[in-house]
Amino acid sequence: MGKCVNHPERETSYLCMKHQVYLCEDCLKCRDPKIYCKFRSSCPIWFMEKRQKNWDSEDKTAAVHPQRHTVVFLPDETAVDVAAGATLLDAAQAADVFVNASCNGKGSCGKCKLVVKSGSVDATPTALLTDGETEKGYVLACQSRVTEDVTVAVPREAVERKLQVAGMGEAVSAKLEGLVGRIDPMLTEIPLTLTPPTLDDSVSDLDRLNRGLKQSGCDVDRLNVGIRVLRQLADAVRKEDWNVTVSIIQRKCANEILDIRPGNGESRSLGIAVDVGTTSIVVYLVDMATGKVLAATSGHNRQAACGDDVINRIVCAEKDGVKKLSRMVLATINNLVGEALAGADAEAREIKNVVISGNTTMAHLLLGIEPRYIRREPYIPTVSDFPVLKAGEIGIRANPMAAVFVMPGPASYVGGDIVSGVLYAGFHREEPVTLYIDVGTNGEIVLGNRDWLMTAACSAGPAFEGGGVRWGMRAEDGAIEEVSIDSSSLAPTFRTVSNAAPRGICGSGMIDLISEMLLKGIIDAGGKFALPEDHPRMKTVGDEKGYVAAAAEETEMGEDILFTETDIHSLVLSKGAIYAGFTVLMDEVGLDFSMIERVYITGGFGQHLDIDKAVTIGLLPDIDRSRFAYLGNSSAAGAYMALLSDDIRREARELSNRMTYIDFSSNSRFMDAFTSALFLPHTDLGQFPSVTVPRA
Amino acid sequence: MGKCVNHPERETSYLCMKHQVYLCEDCLKCRDPKIYCKFRSSCPIWFMEKRQKNWDSEDKTAAVHPQRHTVVFLPDETAVDVAAGATLLDAAQAADVFVNASCNGKGSCGKCKLVVKSGSVDATPTALLTDGETEKGYVLACQSRVTEDVTVAVPREAVERKLQVAGMGEAVSAKLEGLVGRIDPMLTEIPLTLTPPTLDDSVSDLDRLNRGLKQSGCDVDRLNVGIRVLRQLADAVRKEDWNVTVSIIQRKCANEILDIRPGNGESRSLGIAVDVGTTSIVVYLVDMATGKVLAATSGHNRQAACGDDVINRIVCAEKDGVKKLSRMVLATINNLVGEALAGADAEAREIKNVVISGNTTMAHLLLGIEPRYIRREPYIPTVSDFPVLKAGEIGIRANPMAAVFVMPGPASYVGGDIVSGVLYAGFHREEPVTLYIDVGTNGEIVLGNRDWLMTAACSAGPAFEGGGVRWGMRAEDGAIEEVSIDSSSLAPTFRTVSNAAPRGICGSGMIDLISEMLLKGIIDAGGKFALPEDHPRMKTVGDEKGYVAAAAEETEMGEDILFTETDIHSLVLSKGAIYAGFTVLMDEVGLDFSMIERVYITGGFGQHLDIDKAVTIGLLPDIDRSRFAYLGNSSAAGAYMALLSDDIRREARELSNRMTYIDFSSNSRFMDAFTSALFLPHTDLGQFPSVTVPRA
Repeated sequence: MGKCVNHPERETSYLCMKHQVYLCEDCLKCRDPKIYCKFRSSCPIWFMEKRQKNWDSEDKTAAVHPQRHTVVFLPDETAVDVAAGATLLDAAQAADVFVNASCNGKGSCGKCKLVVKSGSVDATPTALLTDGETEKGYVLACQSRVTEDVTVAVPREAVERKLQVAGMGEAVSAKLEGLVGRIDPMLTEIPLTLTPPTLDDSVSDLDRLNRGLKQSGCDVDRLNVGIRVLRQLADAVRKEDWNVTVSIIQRKCANEILDIRPGNGESRSLGIAVDVGTTSIVVYLVDMATGKVLAATSGHNRQAACGDDVINRIVCAEKDGVKKLSRMVLATINNLVGEALAGADAEAREIKNVVISGNTTMAHLLLGIEPRYIRREPYIPTVSDFPVLKAGEIGIRANPMAAVFVMPGPASYVGGDIVSGVLYAGFHREEPVTLYIDVGTNGEIVLGNRDWLMTAACSAGPAFEGGGVRWGMRAEDGAIEEVSIDSSSLAPTFRTVSNAAPRGICGSGMIDLISEMLLKGIIDAGGKFALPEDHPRMKTVGDEKGYVAAAAEETEMGEDILFTETDIHSLVLSKGAIYAGFTVLMDEVGLDFSMIERVYITGGFGQHLDIDKAVTIGLLPDIDRSRFAYLGNSSAAGAYMALLSDDIRREARELSNRMTYIDFSSNSRFMDAFTSALFLPHTDLGQFPSVTVPRA
Repeated sequence: MGKCVNHPERETSYLCMKHQVYLCEDCLKCRDPKIYCKFRSSCPIWFMEKRQKNWDSEDKTAAVHPQRHTVVFLPDETAVDVAAGATLLDAAQAADVFVNASCNGKGSCGKCKLVVKSGSVDATPTALLTDGETEKGYVLACQSRVTEDVTVAVPREAVERKLQVAGMGEAVSAKLEGLVGRIDPMLTEIPLTLTPPTLDDSVSDLDRLNRGLKQSGCDVDRLNVGIRVLRQLADAVRKEDWNVTVSIIQRKCANEILDIRPGNGESRSLGIAVDVGTTSIVVYLVDMATGKVLAATSGHNRQAACGDDVINRIVCAEKDGVKKLSRMVLATINNLVGEALAGADAEAREIKNVVISGNTTMAHLLLGIEPRYIRREPYIPTVSDFPVLKAGEIGIRANPMAAVFVMPGPASYVGGDIVSGVLYAGFHREEPVTLYIDVGTNGEIVLGNRDWLMTAACSAGPAFEGGGVRWGMRAEDGAIEEVSIDSSSLAPTFRTVSNAAPRGICGSGMIDLISEMLLKGIIDAGGKFALPEDHPRMKTVGDEKGYVAAAAEETEMGEDILFTETDIHSLVLSKGAIYAGFTVLMDEVGLDFSMIERVYITGGFGQHLDIDKAVTIGLLPDIDRSRFAYLGNSSAAGAYMALLSDDIRREARELSNRMTYIDFSSNSRFMDAFTSALFLPHTDLGQFPSVTVPRA
């Protein structure tokens, strides 16, 4: 039972398994798109499931349990005091310990596993843990209430590992090299040697400074200066005998002197390009003089504790305040910046330029700007073209004066990350008609060329990033990223990231797995298992049967990695939404696949994407494979370009304004296309001539 | 004994009586103008006096007296704890009780009188108190060290009274009416009714706001916006159904949205024009819609506790930090603003525009900007053209968002107050060659017309504002402002401000008095008394004889108001410096008095200035009286104009740049002219044909 997302006064047992929000019966029946969220069109009644569990939400709270208990989290021995009755997930959030909670504590994803080491908790029974796990002391953090002092361990397999970014450090440098011609940061440092004053040249220090700046080519008529700098000025110019370095920030309409310091020796200037994904965050630390990427780090967005997708995050911000979500994402970014700095032997104060690339919700949450109207019709963001801000006023780990450029985005559901990606892909400057597909938690499509650009969003969900899939994970160490299945034994052969013992399956691995299962007859076109239950590769856990992708004896946690029909269903919903998205968008402008000259794919699949297999499952269209290109993390690459170039930043603003957004939320054609795409590869096999699915 | 102002390691007994700073023998002998201050030319060795007192500075401090005692100040019963050994002046400053200390605690001005009511203090004997005063328990605050708990009273005659501003409230309104055509504040509030968003018009809130602003004629391409406003935006636009009021600040190069609030009803917008004088501060509270002056208040600049002139203030800022001086002047301003608000039944948050007009040192100290290079050759201010700031970042009692314009000034010793005054006088737009004389603590001169403008400063000292004159005071209640002397009895007839019992003499009264004494043969051209010591109007106090301007039985404090040769000397130094100033400036451009078509006089004399008498003492040139005009407080009037008009603010910047500053600090002609002017009316009587001084 839970509260209806639209009518909080109503208790309901209808849970949307996709968005993890409750809906009352009126909302389910109502066809008015205003009632439900942005995603209504891709979230029809049929995948609501009546939840049978009698778990009764977060209502049992501290008020009735006045005592407090201590929870210690291993391996770091982080201790926190919580009120009795709080969940272990609450405790983890309070202690700043990362626990994945895809479903935002609703008990439906089974990801927030902890192992009780001493003491005990009041745990609600769940089918999401195997008997083996329960025996070993596993509990779900969100389903376990604290009743006494307790020590729990974050299981080894859940400890955050390095993400497999498409190219790290040297590799990133190589990939991005030459993308930007002239380096032109937002915050520049201008060394000056001023003429000392005399009785005959007795202009004020500020006038003298402006004169020096003018001589060095700076447009002083557009230059503002604040009281802080005026208070530093007299000492700063005199301390090193009229040699000074002036920090100037470039803004849309007027520049500003941010800082002045004595001396004009060289000092290193660094920048960070930050890709703020709903699921993952990537940071590039860049030398602003050369454009070299000194370090690249990545990690899970801590907001994951508030749910997988942007809707859940907004709901959480409405409930707990946007500051909480802002703190979470800042904690992630700042940790990653810290790691990058350590790797490059650099200090935060050297970071003087920052570019943030993220979807519209991520940008709002990061900046602490109200996001609630993004999820309500007519889906209005507060800001789409952000002013240049200072790191200190946002809370990013950098020089407090550092200039922060937030990538503009054309709409509530097509944000700066897409603008960033298009900038990197570059087809907005070229002739060929191009289809650009970002398979992320949301799922965005851009279609066009230098003359026109259309864009749309479809709620793909986080399945390809591991969300809503029992053993789904991101492309970290131990993720199964490539799979083939032997035709006769039906046994899988796989490769994992870093060749570590398998811990789960990432996006590219799931595409391979479903494609292989389909081609080898393990599943049918409806995503149902065609094998007998007693087949050696099949196993049942709770009430679900699944294909054993990796056996217990070879996995890191000693549990089978099982791929169930529910998992397949989640992926089919995702790929169906995306396929429907681009076909409907093409339809809107009267194009068919023969007119698409290039298809760019980007997203959180991991480093390798098998185009053939993605076509087989119906994620990508069945066209000449040479027209496809997989771009890796294009949002981070675009952020890197904007970090270095003012032309690119200007281009970003123009690009965002040029894109025509098509809203699918009340588009019946999208609904039809989506329904037709919920087969493998598709209801209409004529669209996939090269895919031969064996008859069961 | 004290520390040399240039060589703090040296103890010296040479005190400049004018600037109240100690100088060592090397400094006295040295002719290098770098050694001493700006005022060296007008501060030659001959008016240094060897101080014979063995008072040994502030060295006896708390370190050797670990106890603390309580000092209670009557009449307000303000209590403060100080370390034993602190002076009562220290205690008063700590308690924020206003005590006039012209000489900055050096024991030479005799102004910081307090009356001990209970307990006792360790008071150094002083000739500056009469026997009658000592009997009544009077002490000098700076010469009295706290050794036990003590209660002291601020004497009734020293309690701050309302200044006689040249025209208050209604009168100010009448004077200023019509000076400004179109009212155009820096911070404007724009009421908007926005079109609510729809699916077909789904631009972001910020874009919608910009669209509304553009439609109302605002240049949105030059508009910045900060994170604070972005965080308010979504709620503000929706709360009153898309009716909002936007506050925009006009800046030199780019405007900024400062605030957005729901609803677009009318709200009152007020402004304050603040004249920050070294001695006095005047505040006009103005209705920004009509230009009406709702209230005018004035008071003593609390920095007076750190000495009378700008040099002493800078020395104090170097010693105790500029923050202390900033706090003092802000306390004065904010009290005056509070009084004005109370008088107009208004609130601080309604004040959205502020103009500050003050000399360069006052502007630096108010803003907390380093002033120390103003007093060191080559006399460089940190800032001369100030950016528009916000009241909140300065600490002025107003809406924290209020825009603050600080009048620009052309040089370290010709500041925004002069630019302000010229703007009000208006001769910089006209044909006639005009001489503009500001007789303030400094003493500034402007000469020119619409084609050219020259300016200079001469250290006039605060004598005409009451500084360095035993019974000198500003034009407050009880100040003698007009004097005539009966030719036969030599008894004075006087008029006081508000016809109150006399408490002292203000500038216009002193001019009258000296002029009358000169014409009636009481003093000679050298400023020495010509009367026998036993004349009924003569009296001796300590070792000084003086003319009884008001007898004890008629004065408020029951003491004679005596005018001594030292007092006359102070005034002669002041008038000599000013006369030398404008004659040398005219000389520089090859003009004589016949070419001067108008003479404007401004300054802190009080409401009435008798031009004839000012000519008699040699302060003003002996030319056709119809060419003179007394402007009252022109600095406040110019500030008022700038408050209302953007054209005036722009004109102020242009004017400041147009003025050519002539430095007198190393000008030998100035020195000669000054020496010649140290007689009444002048050494060269041919320059004063209309003045007939009786032969002794």
